[in-house]
Amino acid sequence: MLIIGERINSNRKSIADAILAKDTNAIQREALLQGKAGAAILDVYCGTLNDDEEPEAMAWLIQTIQSVTKIPLCIDSININTLEAGLKVYTGQKPIINSINAEKEDYGEVLPLVKKYKTAVIASCVDDEGIPQNFDDASIVGIKLVEDLLSAGLQLEDIYFDPIIKSLTKDTQAATLVFELMSFIRNKYPDIHITCGLSNISHGLPERQLLNRAFLVLAIEHGLDAPILDPLDFNTMNLIYATNAILNRDNFCTEYTRAYRQGKFTQI
Amino acid sequence: MLIIGERINSNRKSIADAILAKDTNAIQREALLQGKAGAAILDVYCGTLNDDEEPEAMAWLIQTIQSVTKIPLCIDSININTLEAGLKVYTGQKPIINSINAEKEDYGEVLPLVKKYKTAVIASCVDDEGIPQNFDDASIVGIKLVEDLLSAGLQLEDIYFDPIIKSLTKDTQAATLVFELMSFIRNKYPDIHITCGLSNISHGLPERQLLNRAFLVLAIEHGLDAPILDPLDFNTMNLIYATNAILNRDNFCTEYTRAYRQGKFTQI
Repeated sequence: MLIIGERINSNRKSIADAILAKDTNAIQREALLQGKAGAAILDVYCGTLNDDEEPEAMAWLIQTIQSVTKIPLCIDSININTLEAGLKVYTGQKPIINSINAEKEDYGEVLPLVKKYKTAVIASCVDDEGIPQNFDDASIVGIKLVEDLLSAGLQLEDIYFDPIIKSLTKDTQAATLVFELMSFIRNKYPDIHITCGLSNISHGLPERQLLNRAFLVLAIEHGLDAPILDPLDFNTMNLIYATNAILNRDNFCTEYTRAYRQGKFTQI
Repeated sequence: MLIIGERINSNRKSIADAILAKDTNAIQREALLQGKAGAAILDVYCGTLNDDEEPEAMAWLIQTIQSVTKIPLCIDSININTLEAGLKVYTGQKPIINSINAEKEDYGEVLPLVKKYKTAVIASCVDDEGIPQNFDDASIVGIKLVEDLLSAGLQLEDIYFDPIIKSLTKDTQAATLVFELMSFIRNKYPDIHITCGLSNISHGLPERQLLNRAFLVLAIEHGLDAPILDPLDFNTMNLIYATNAILNRDNFCTEYTRAYRQGKFTQI
């Protein structure tokens, strides 16, 4: 399981403020806390800034984070200039671009960056028709996207397939469709990563964390191995350890009992 | 989803004390609280008493409970005299015997009671060889038990199949084997009920409720529809609503949002 930490995101007011104030300590603290809590990758997003400010902010964030931790980063923007500004200053283990998708324009813009900087990439299952509405369409879009990336020279381990989750309020089958797609992709490409944000599923519903947790447990069974989440949410992290133990992916519950002994089953 | 409430069980000291003291109010309160919290069936167990005291205690418990609620009861004993003592005083909706299994002696003793009192029954997937150790053996034992009960005149809706759960500490595949068996039985007999106690899976491990909850979510996906649990454990009950919504078994999240509006997502 590769946890992608989501906390360095300018939609959070504390992060937006830290970017504006160039508060190095605040950003580095978020990076170190997430690493300590079990994040294997950190997502970095500052897309709430103006287009002309975002690239510089991304470069600053990446340099700020990489001066205190070697955890690989996921450079998250819909702005191609921001992605490149981040990649230019990035050092160390292979970065991840968040994201590429199967829309012709987006794919054509992002792929050159993936190749030039030899990055991994989150591949979103969306094409020019939008988010596929059923399993047949989604599997066609997904396979084409993965095969195109493989043809472009990527390895399966560098592809983080994202099935794009709608809210249950928009589509009552939103979760079951995603589970079917995850199982299909996991079965067809055993070495690929499968990622997704947890919270979209519950948009517009009360007590969202309940739905997010039930979704997480089931998604792990269906092949999710790189969830994007808040690693400081100990209730969610605990459930990941428990789910792996239940699913016999943690032989003799070794990781589960170690996490318990290390005191990870409490608030950090 | 049929919740079988587990709280009236003499392994709990408060219940054992109430039985000894013939404390009618304490028992009735447990029955009413569980019904209010969403239990559709109440399990009744007093097997910690001596064999010569248990039948009378069971009869008293059933009369005490049935004087305040019409919720069907699950008469839980390994003692055939206790089962019959309970059945003799039982009134109202069809009772459930907990349990029959495929051991020759047990089956031969319990089946006459099932037929005489026209009960439903929890059918435990165990035979004279003990708990089956793999899917092939378990499916053979399970099918024979269900088919024997059908031949004896029961309807599928009167059979609560219990796959008997071992602890992960005894068998690291304990949960995945049960999920495979549940899916198989659910697929073969769509109208059967599938039950199990939640807590065996985590025996001997720390923070058991984490494992129990991950197990519950996955078991519901694989066909569990009549879990035996504490309906006053609101974290577990909340997760059942959430899981049904995620699995598209609660169209437009109607039950989920109703439970929220009714204030069920908090401690009772």
